[in-house]
Amino acid sequence: MAVQAVESSTASEGSTGSAGSSVSLGPAVALSCRECGERFPLGPIFACAECFGPLEVAYDLPTGDPEGLRKRIEAGPNNIWRYAPLLPVPADVADKPNINPGFTKLVKADNLARELGVTGELYIKDDSGNPTHSFKDRVVAQAVEAARAFGFTTLSCSSTGNLAGAVGAAAARAGLRSCTFIPHDLEQGKVVMAAIYGGDLVAIEGTYDDVNRFCSELIGDPAGEGWGFVNVNLRPYYAEGSKTLAYEICEQLGWRLPDQLVIPIASGSQLTKIDKGLKELIALGLVEDKPYKIFGAQAEGCSPVSTAFKAGHDVVRPQKPNTIAKSLAIGNPADGPYVLDIARRTGGAVEDVNDEQVVDAIKLLARTEGIFAETAGGVTLGVAKKLLENGVLDPALTTVVLNTGDGLKTLDAVAPTTGPTVVIRPSLDAFREAGLG
Amino acid sequence: MAVQAVESSTASEGSTGSAGSSVSLGPAVALSCRECGERFPLGPIFACAECFGPLEVAYDLPTGDPEGLRKRIEAGPNNIWRYAPLLPVPADVADKPNINPGFTKLVKADNLARELGVTGELYIKDDSGNPTHSFKDRVVAQAVEAARAFGFTTLSCSSTGNLAGAVGAAAARAGLRSCTFIPHDLEQGKVVMAAIYGGDLVAIEGTYDDVNRFCSELIGDPAGEGWGFVNVNLRPYYAEGSKTLAYEICEQLGWRLPDQLVIPIASGSQLTKIDKGLKELIALGLVEDKPYKIFGAQAEGCSPVSTAFKAGHDVVRPQKPNTIAKSLAIGNPADGPYVLDIARRTGGAVEDVNDEQVVDAIKLLARTEGIFAETAGGVTLGVAKKLLENGVLDPALTTVVLNTGDGLKTLDAVAPTTGPTVVIRPSLDAFREAGLG
Repeated sequence: MAVQAVESSTASEGSTGSAGSSVSLGPAVALSCRECGERFPLGPIFACAECFGPLEVAYDLPTGDPEGLRKRIEAGPNNIWRYAPLLPVPADVADKPNINPGFTKLVKADNLARELGVTGELYIKDDSGNPTHSFKDRVVAQAVEAARAFGFTTLSCSSTGNLAGAVGAAAARAGLRSCTFIPHDLEQGKVVMAAIYGGDLVAIEGTYDDVNRFCSELIGDPAGEGWGFVNVNLRPYYAEGSKTLAYEICEQLGWRLPDQLVIPIASGSQLTKIDKGLKELIALGLVEDKPYKIFGAQAEGCSPVSTAFKAGHDVVRPQKPNTIAKSLAIGNPADGPYVLDIARRTGGAVEDVNDEQVVDAIKLLARTEGIFAETAGGVTLGVAKKLLENGVLDPALTTVVLNTGDGLKTLDAVAPTTGPTVVIRPSLDAFREAGLG
Repeated sequence: MAVQAVESSTASEGSTGSAGSSVSLGPAVALSCRECGERFPLGPIFACAECFGPLEVAYDLPTGDPEGLRKRIEAGPNNIWRYAPLLPVPADVADKPNINPGFTKLVKADNLARELGVTGELYIKDDSGNPTHSFKDRVVAQAVEAARAFGFTTLSCSSTGNLAGAVGAAAARAGLRSCTFIPHDLEQGKVVMAAIYGGDLVAIEGTYDDVNRFCSELIGDPAGEGWGFVNVNLRPYYAEGSKTLAYEICEQLGWRLPDQLVIPIASGSQLTKIDKGLKELIALGLVEDKPYKIFGAQAEGCSPVSTAFKAGHDVVRPQKPNTIAKSLAIGNPADGPYVLDIARRTGGAVEDVNDEQVVDAIKLLARTEGIFAETAGGVTLGVAKKLLENGVLDPALTTVVLNTGDGLKTLDAVAPTTGPTVVIRPSLDAFREAGLG
């Protein structure tokens, strides 16, 4: 399970340092298989040589002095590197060129709470404030440090646009080359965002699946030698970036766990890593050990995890995505089973909303809190609303809802139903007739 | 001149508090005419009753304990309200609902410096990190507090899109109504951004000039009663928000003045207020009193201030704008004469670049630092590059270049010349042939 590696490393490894590896990635000591628990030295690998299970980073975390650690974090920079002691990055990471995402706003959403009938504290963790305006900057920033540690000079990924932009920006700043891969038929806006940072951008004649398959081939080929694919051979490190959402939420709440979190599900990795981060904070004594519930959010048009949750299944059956929430449209989510486990273990749930509810939720958040969310944010808030209406979320508790990206990136979703109240001639008479004065 | 009001208020007013006004806006004590110096009580007025000159806020600033003030600021929130003691806002402003912009990144641009031959320190102050991704959030946030102080319940503006979005977002969060005005023929993306926050959006059949004229009529009409127009009757307060750029730059440099600043010019207000902010920091003893040079940046297609500067004129002759840098396209800039004065007094300059140079500068910044700037940012960096090439900017000094907005807002400017390196079939052979491996 997602947290086992952490627990075993903090409990049993002591301060033995990196397990057989020569790279220096701070508290990271090994890669550990999430299925069989087998350990491997830190390296650019992502699947267990024993059972083909996914690998994740295991740590030797700085236990024993929570107050000292808390002070060290609080004295750190206003970005994710304040949590360097808990991440697979070198201790001097803040001095290296990186786009330094994170420490985004945790907005106390009192207007929204009133509208939804929430009597407890309701917060939006707003990751649209990141450098390229989505949470992807957090994970890519980790991949940059792993790439440096492993001597990779080219940063790469398969992408439907947003990730290529995040990789391009991070590579540019880090002084790495980037070469990213996208399907050839993306909208111009997404192509611009992927290309503007000046790295090589390769458009592949085919679907996103074709792009993915091609990248898997490239990793094994001499043409891809020295390349770090952030979401393939650097994935174990990359994924850890999502832990910083857990750290920030708790620190911004005054080192306090929220009672309920609502988190979007694409591959499911973000949700599992937030859970991992929360468990680490408890294990380190940085927050009180108390229960919390994790809720997962999907779009109805791509709801494999939600469907499995509601049916009581442990297995996630792939779906063919059809939703406006394209950044969540992964029909065969790799971490789906782990998400089901976390939702059930914590007493949470997984729910989905349709595209109309997604658009309504985007507008609701904009209207009440002045935050313009990407469709993924609409999914998450829409699900939170539905769970409140169904009595699954407790309105009296402290709840955090994630907005993982910016509405500027998915204008098309709301454009057909968003426009002027009225069109008038430039005269006071016309204005008075419109009844707005 | 821009700084006179500050100097007179800090030097001669002592702690007399608000000059005849009953509103409480922190250290703000009066409005002062920038032309004749006449003072007026704080209120929703913007022109001198004596000479029709523009009014600006005069302060009773907290002199005498710079170390205490510095500590108070550093202990404040990670947004502009850390500078509340220097702004026309109530002392408890941070507890009120506001979108809380500011404290955006000051990026040390070493890659860019190398490329431009800068041997000193080069920084980008990146205001794309604000809530609606431009510096407008800083000024609108001030206007919200002034609106509250004067009992206005509707926030308004004339806009070509961006400002309406910033006003809509801020009003939504503050719990105020918004009713904003735009020309009827804007691109859909800009309309969406202006409308998404749920306030009333009125499209006017006419040009931006028609919209402006209509708003001026509305202010004097019963239909506009109780309305705060951020850039008209709240303008003196609104404009002060730009001072926070000066404060942040100096604090982020370790309470140090930069040697050179390059700032875009639309109305010129931002540049004059940054100068005002720098002078305040000196007067308060928060930074060492040493010379600094201010450089103004315009697009060639709208360069009334640059033209006047180069011709040695004191008067700014209006131009009809024709440039891709639409957020800077004010042909008759209200603060133009003040900008000329500041550039000349500090030993700076005003320069312009053409649209091709704007696009090149946007790409240069993206490629070197991973920052995707709006066209205004391209203008400013393009001018900085030109001034370096001409030997006007000193490459050995500490220089700060402003990026005031996000490239996502002006995709059209770079789209025609930004795309994939290559389009290929999904095969390793095709990739090898492309020569990118």
